[in-house]
Amino acid sequence: MAKSVLTPQSEDFPRWYQDVLAKAELAENGPVRGTMVIRPYGYSIWERIQAEIDARIKECGAKNAYFPLFIPQSYLAKEAEHVEGFSPELAVVTHAGGAELAEPVVVRPTSETVIGEYMAKWIQSYRDLPLLLNQWANVVRWELRPRLFLRTSEFLWQEGHTAHVSEADAQSYAQRIHVEVYDDFLRNVLAIPAQLGLKTARERFAGATNTLTCEGMMGDGKALQMATSHELGQNFAKAFDIKYLGDDGAEHLCWTTSWGASTRLVGGLIMAHGDDNGIVVPPRLAPVQVAVLCVRDEPDVTAAAERIAGELRAAGIRVELDVRSGSFGRRVTDWELKGVPVRLEVGPRDLAEGLVTLARRDGVEKAQVQLAAVTRDVGQALEDLQSRLLADSIARRDERTAEVATLDEAMEAGKDGFARLPWSVIGAEGEAKLNEQTLSVRCLQREDGSLPDSVDEAGLIALVARSY
Amino acid sequence: MAKSVLTPQSEDFPRWYQDVLAKAELAENGPVRGTMVIRPYGYSIWERIQAEIDARIKECGAKNAYFPLFIPQSYLAKEAEHVEGFSPELAVVTHAGGAELAEPVVVRPTSETVIGEYMAKWIQSYRDLPLLLNQWANVVRWELRPRLFLRTSEFLWQEGHTAHVSEADAQSYAQRIHVEVYDDFLRNVLAIPAQLGLKTARERFAGATNTLTCEGMMGDGKALQMATSHELGQNFAKAFDIKYLGDDGAEHLCWTTSWGASTRLVGGLIMAHGDDNGIVVPPRLAPVQVAVLCVRDEPDVTAAAERIAGELRAAGIRVELDVRSGSFGRRVTDWELKGVPVRLEVGPRDLAEGLVTLARRDGVEKAQVQLAAVTRDVGQALEDLQSRLLADSIARRDERTAEVATLDEAMEAGKDGFARLPWSVIGAEGEAKLNEQTLSVRCLQREDGSLPDSVDEAGLIALVARSY
Repeated sequence: MAKSVLTPQSEDFPRWYQDVLAKAELAENGPVRGTMVIRPYGYSIWERIQAEIDARIKECGAKNAYFPLFIPQSYLAKEAEHVEGFSPELAVVTHAGGAELAEPVVVRPTSETVIGEYMAKWIQSYRDLPLLLNQWANVVRWELRPRLFLRTSEFLWQEGHTAHVSEADAQSYAQRIHVEVYDDFLRNVLAIPAQLGLKTARERFAGATNTLTCEGMMGDGKALQMATSHELGQNFAKAFDIKYLGDDGAEHLCWTTSWGASTRLVGGLIMAHGDDNGIVVPPRLAPVQVAVLCVRDEPDVTAAAERIAGELRAAGIRVELDVRSGSFGRRVTDWELKGVPVRLEVGPRDLAEGLVTLARRDGVEKAQVQLAAVTRDVGQALEDLQSRLLADSIARRDERTAEVATLDEAMEAGKDGFARLPWSVIGAEGEAKLNEQTLSVRCLQREDGSLPDSVDEAGLIALVARSY
Repeated sequence: MAKSVLTPQSEDFPRWYQDVLAKAELAENGPVRGTMVIRPYGYSIWERIQAEIDARIKECGAKNAYFPLFIPQSYLAKEAEHVEGFSPELAVVTHAGGAELAEPVVVRPTSETVIGEYMAKWIQSYRDLPLLLNQWANVVRWELRPRLFLRTSEFLWQEGHTAHVSEADAQSYAQRIHVEVYDDFLRNVLAIPAQLGLKTARERFAGATNTLTCEGMMGDGKALQMATSHELGQNFAKAFDIKYLGDDGAEHLCWTTSWGASTRLVGGLIMAHGDDNGIVVPPRLAPVQVAVLCVRDEPDVTAAAERIAGELRAAGIRVELDVRSGSFGRRVTDWELKGVPVRLEVGPRDLAEGLVTLARRDGVEKAQVQLAAVTRDVGQALEDLQSRLLADSIARRDERTAEVATLDEAMEAGKDGFARLPWSVIGAEGEAKLNEQTLSVRCLQREDGSLPDSVDEAGLIALVARSY
């Protein structure tokens, strides 16, 4: 394996992260503080994330729409907790079209308010419910300590917004999205076994009555919040007058939810699977599943590589044929940096024997395979790698999970993984102490790891960790 | 056919446009002046436009990336014509994160400047060229006279940005995008036969040396600029220092291009094909190609409708099964408003004879077809309708195109269509006179309708019209 061009993870994980973003050509800082330029390879990963999440959202019956970037400042003020939570992060447009605006407008930090205004217009009766909307958009939350993909002043995301006839219906839909969209995507595509649970009152979204979270474990022992779903109770329905005429002939307030996942997922993918040679993209997600490289620039070799690439493409595999000139070793390093699951190396000696060399990104296998069976063997390697990445992720998460009994033990164990302990041992006072130590309660879950309906359920377990 | 709920086009075309946006649930005004809410059905049309254009852009070798929404004000000032052109339309963020910004940032009106800055970083040698980038994004240009889809303060678009070794290479790529992406999409998917040509110096993009345009003819005789591609010469390369080391060992400035198409295309689709019953969505574009309706709410009928919908879906046809309760007639009106190409009406009497009723949106056919052959007949109807929409569009455009010889004749004929006359008859002075009469030179093309390389070519023909 080629020598790495990255700072080793064990030496300096944050530096490794910066290095790999640059060397794998994923992203770099934008000119305005906290903003991000997503380079083509990084963006192709995001496009695949979008496609997978979008299909799952549509499966759950929500439809895409688009609401404006600019929100009147007065809208945010309508929900007290919401405005308090977001005010410090807002970007405000005061001038437009060459003149000062009569009312400044904020650049959306999230769209509950503007969407609430339109839900109120569109919903007349119970027949219009549930109203299930989603949008793919950019949002802005001014960041003082930005970090590419993880925490940027502008980020890309999807935000779902729904309205329901009852609290039970709203809760069940939020849970469905959480499990069938986010957890399913994280586990079965991103190969990240998230911990599902509820946020404590302290960590909840501004304006929510309940926040569901998926918490992933990163390579350095820190947790990452990868997606959240919020039960908003009737808070926004009250603020925006979202009402329906029931089948009882009376008017009722709706119950609303919102839920989102963002470009932060790219950061999660990098930190969950990356190693000292680069990132590792799970095959089901990978924009390039197979890189086909010629060992030498000879017409016969190129022709064979083209044939192989064509055959794989015909089988529905996402292939890139690397016809660049330049050092073979550097190209290998480059594909490893980019985390492409399988590399096929096509050379004249192998070809003479009807063979081609197949290298897996996890280094488990580098073997000659029969040209005649290359599609089958590549397909098998992709499947194996997908399973292995998930199994490894589960093992690493479990190694980094400690069952503890006291707050002090949680403070210790939470420094490099999840500390699990009864929520009743912590309480609001213990939670404040954890926060002072840069630790937090990532989520509350049932003893068996399942998602509770309420933070007030008896016997809940808290997961304590450091986090991004 | 059900009675229309729209203002007839012949009575008041702008009012018809407003009516159809509302009744077909396409879009409505946002809370901040000039902004737009795109409703789910309108957005599903945009998603299909995106998919078709994105595939063509990728075919031409460009890769998607993402650049920040916020641009330092100083960037725009670097290209003199560019800043002059865009300054009156900018939205400016002066406060963020609870404090006044040291340097205000503008919300991107287009991204030549910020992308130029990164091209300069990424391009080292001729081996890095051409650099072919595209992004799907929202942009903001403050509008005093907004009109949904056609002219909104915020709109969604794709903007391509490329850098090349030579002027010839840049020109040939801009022309390729114009023909293979835009014109091909407009003609073969949107069924709109655009007039291709160059903008005059007066109408050119701010900072371009050449602007290529696709001009569509709308139902009211006005032209609509549907996509533009710009040759930017070395203007942005100079402003942002975009240089490469040539194979001659010397440093050279790059030649850049940019090209875009926006949510305005949805407005074009509506105005090009719509009639007094609603919009008409060409089958190749339609998010819903076939609506399957039950004439009566009976279990046998519903089961048959489900079977038919499943069979069509299996054949790759985009189907919506309409299981709503409520008046059959109103549902028919609704699908007509939404322009769904084919409606299948499933009723107990037809079913008893092994039949189902197929209605085409253009009203050409409403006939009973054999259940056993429904997929074939629907497929045939979709193909026929696609061809017919294009043929009708071409015929309408040609009817609305007059060959004229003088400026006075152009002023008259341009009021309800394209007036074609030699550009030499108009000249800069004539162009100013046209503008005073709310007419403009939409584009310059060769006598045979093809795209010139330069506005200075001899014998060019000007197309004069009113426009959106």
